[in-house]
Amino acid sequence: MTDPGDPWIPVAGNGLLHRRWFLQGALGVAMGLPLSRAAATAPSFRPPWASAPGGPLSGYGTPSPYEGHVQRIGLVSQPGTDGSGASRTPLEHLEGVITPNGLCFERHHSGVPEIDPQRHGVVVHGRVRRPLRFSVAALHRYPLVTRTLFLECSGNSAGLLAADAQLRTCGELHGLVSASEYTGVPLALLLDEAGVEDDARWVVAEGGDAALMSRSVPLAKALDDALLVLYQNGERLRPENGYPVRLLLPGYEGNMSIKWLKRLHVTSAPAMARNETSKYTDLRPDGTADQFTFPMAVKSVITSPSPGLSLVEPGLYQISGLAWSGRGTVRRVEVSADGGRSWAEAALDEPARPLSLNRFRAAWRWNGGPAVLISRASDDHGDVQPTRDAWLARHGVSAFYHCNAMQAWGIDARGEVRNVYL
Amino acid sequence: MTDPGDPWIPVAGNGLLHRRWFLQGALGVAMGLPLSRAAATAPSFRPPWASAPGGPLSGYGTPSPYEGHVQRIGLVSQPGTDGSGASRTPLEHLEGVITPNGLCFERHHSGVPEIDPQRHGVVVHGRVRRPLRFSVAALHRYPLVTRTLFLECSGNSAGLLAADAQLRTCGELHGLVSASEYTGVPLALLLDEAGVEDDARWVVAEGGDAALMSRSVPLAKALDDALLVLYQNGERLRPENGYPVRLLLPGYEGNMSIKWLKRLHVTSAPAMARNETSKYTDLRPDGTADQFTFPMAVKSVITSPSPGLSLVEPGLYQISGLAWSGRGTVRRVEVSADGGRSWAEAALDEPARPLSLNRFRAAWRWNGGPAVLISRASDDHGDVQPTRDAWLARHGVSAFYHCNAMQAWGIDARGEVRNVYL
Repeated sequence: MTDPGDPWIPVAGNGLLHRRWFLQGALGVAMGLPLSRAAATAPSFRPPWASAPGGPLSGYGTPSPYEGHVQRIGLVSQPGTDGSGASRTPLEHLEGVITPNGLCFERHHSGVPEIDPQRHGVVVHGRVRRPLRFSVAALHRYPLVTRTLFLECSGNSAGLLAADAQLRTCGELHGLVSASEYTGVPLALLLDEAGVEDDARWVVAEGGDAALMSRSVPLAKALDDALLVLYQNGERLRPENGYPVRLLLPGYEGNMSIKWLKRLHVTSAPAMARNETSKYTDLRPDGTADQFTFPMAVKSVITSPSPGLSLVEPGLYQISGLAWSGRGTVRRVEVSADGGRSWAEAALDEPARPLSLNRFRAAWRWNGGPAVLISRASDDHGDVQPTRDAWLARHGVSAFYHCNAMQAWGIDARGEVRNVYL
Repeated sequence: MTDPGDPWIPVAGNGLLHRRWFLQGALGVAMGLPLSRAAATAPSFRPPWASAPGGPLSGYGTPSPYEGHVQRIGLVSQPGTDGSGASRTPLEHLEGVITPNGLCFERHHSGVPEIDPQRHGVVVHGRVRRPLRFSVAALHRYPLVTRTLFLECSGNSAGLLAADAQLRTCGELHGLVSASEYTGVPLALLLDEAGVEDDARWVVAEGGDAALMSRSVPLAKALDDALLVLYQNGERLRPENGYPVRLLLPGYEGNMSIKWLKRLHVTSAPAMARNETSKYTDLRPDGTADQFTFPMAVKSVITSPSPGLSLVEPGLYQISGLAWSGRGTVRRVEVSADGGRSWAEAALDEPARPLSLNRFRAAWRWNGGPAVLISRASDDHGDVQPTRDAWLARHGVSAFYHCNAMQAWGIDARGEVRNVYL
């Protein structure tokens, strides 16, 4: 569509306004209720919490009881267990980019170990000249690096592959993703100290939990930007996120970023471990499997409006969502309000953060009629997020992992939002 | 000092190495302990937490019990109260830039109110054409902005003004500062909707707690970059940080960013409220007072090593700290290991974040002898952090607020660190 100059003229069908509207401000949102001047200072304005001293100072704060419903969702564990499964981030209740540590999605293969940091360390061995063990205290002596990065389970959004559109929330469908400010030691420093042999090509990372989760990491990635993370969002890692030390492979599928990291075995070939062959591997339509799929593909999802966040009346709304790419930097997010017939460019928070979630926003005037909201991200690697049909045509009906298809939210005349297939 | 080319050649006295050492990596830190290849996979490597399933998935996670000592510190309230005072961020236990919500410092004037968001709103009145009330739900409809910003109490670091150097930790001395990713509505949008009168110059912001804390904000600042914050570090504001809505004035002294915001009174003159006259005001050496001191000055502090984090043995250490400026962007941080006789440039995380904390790091080889570590920040406004003596000479001995003097940490031959005056 052409650039109309006037931010109030729609740039795409069914009420999408130019992103200039967003950047310039909300002229005419007019959500403030008129007020007589006297009412502003009337005694009736003093509610109970302004009539008596409030609660005490505290050592470690917690959310408001009025936000008690904002919890990880879809906690599902293997039969007979309570810690071997997954929980999801309630994306529809969050804003900005950072995911609070208490709400980062979980995926454990044998629960959350309670590791004593003084009895834990990371061993580097195999095809190295000097096998070494690094205590947690020793890791704190190395130069640290801080980066904001996304982490996404390769099984995220698999709910979109169900034959019929599931009545689930945004977090239930797409909440196996989070973004955090990670601080850790570049793995390259430790490998350099150990002295990698010439024939080394892989690093098999193993966790210290009872599952001994292991994954093979290309040596090139380990030497490039891999981190041994000690801090997440400013504080030490939480137990469910790998305390006291985890591997973090920026942009790669989540389960390669081994939590509770115990061992790095430098090898000349991948281990072909269970969790990189029978699981976390993409089955092609012809029955063969891809070996391997590391970076998570470009993706986006509208977090608001989304199921559970109903529209209360016709008028102006902010469309807000998250976009990311495991291959680089999100360059563009477009939104549609008419099921993909026309598109408007969303505003992206600046500066763009490579290999991180990024927040996008768009202005939309809902006319009270049916609408279908979709977002579509593209990255600097040249990839564009596909439709669900296109994704299925390429990956086949047996596919489960690495789904980056577009999410469509249908809105009915009552303002209720639900997952729909086009 | 000259640039030596070799990152191992000191660039300043008492062991400070060139920041290239830091940027290139830790060649020769050598903290890994040699290990026989057999030991790497020996059965003895399986501790209890790897021998049985771990803990359950959880709705809202909490830190490891091994990090239970990482709490806000120095909780001090007025006599007979438990919520009217301050607690501090334990800076020495944190890394990166973001302060976790649970550890952001507190400063309350009548405790923490537990506000029902459905019964709360923000009134805009006074010198406006249309007095308005914005419910919390209405605020969520406006375009949101996300920014990482510091927030510092103007009383931070006043402990440095004591006649004798106090034996306190970094957090106890400087922990009335934090940084968060804030998401909120630009205040300019709401003022525009209300229609500010031509003679308006100030906005008096008032909180909804029992203290009715109020401060006068220049209209120019309110129209520039002020936010009505709804989210902090991805989730809704915590009660102690102003839930359900707070004012945020980037770079300005903390108590102007009124929590539990209830009222914005547009006026032609400042209110001269208690907390901008008898408190939070700088007394000059001649007995007169400055009217007013809004932006917090350029500042930095080394968080590690710092008191309580002893050096265990001679060798290489990372010096890590925080730098910020309420007038713009930190451009340079220098560190000294010899009490200010010589200086080396620290590495700053990129991209630099204006009006936010920024993490700096430097490499230091401790020779086991006495040392005095200092950091010194400068900003793009042209300001340089002063010594304590220079600060006192300018502000006088009655001064209490806005102390941005350099902090010196003395290190003795046992590796213990303490607050020292030069």
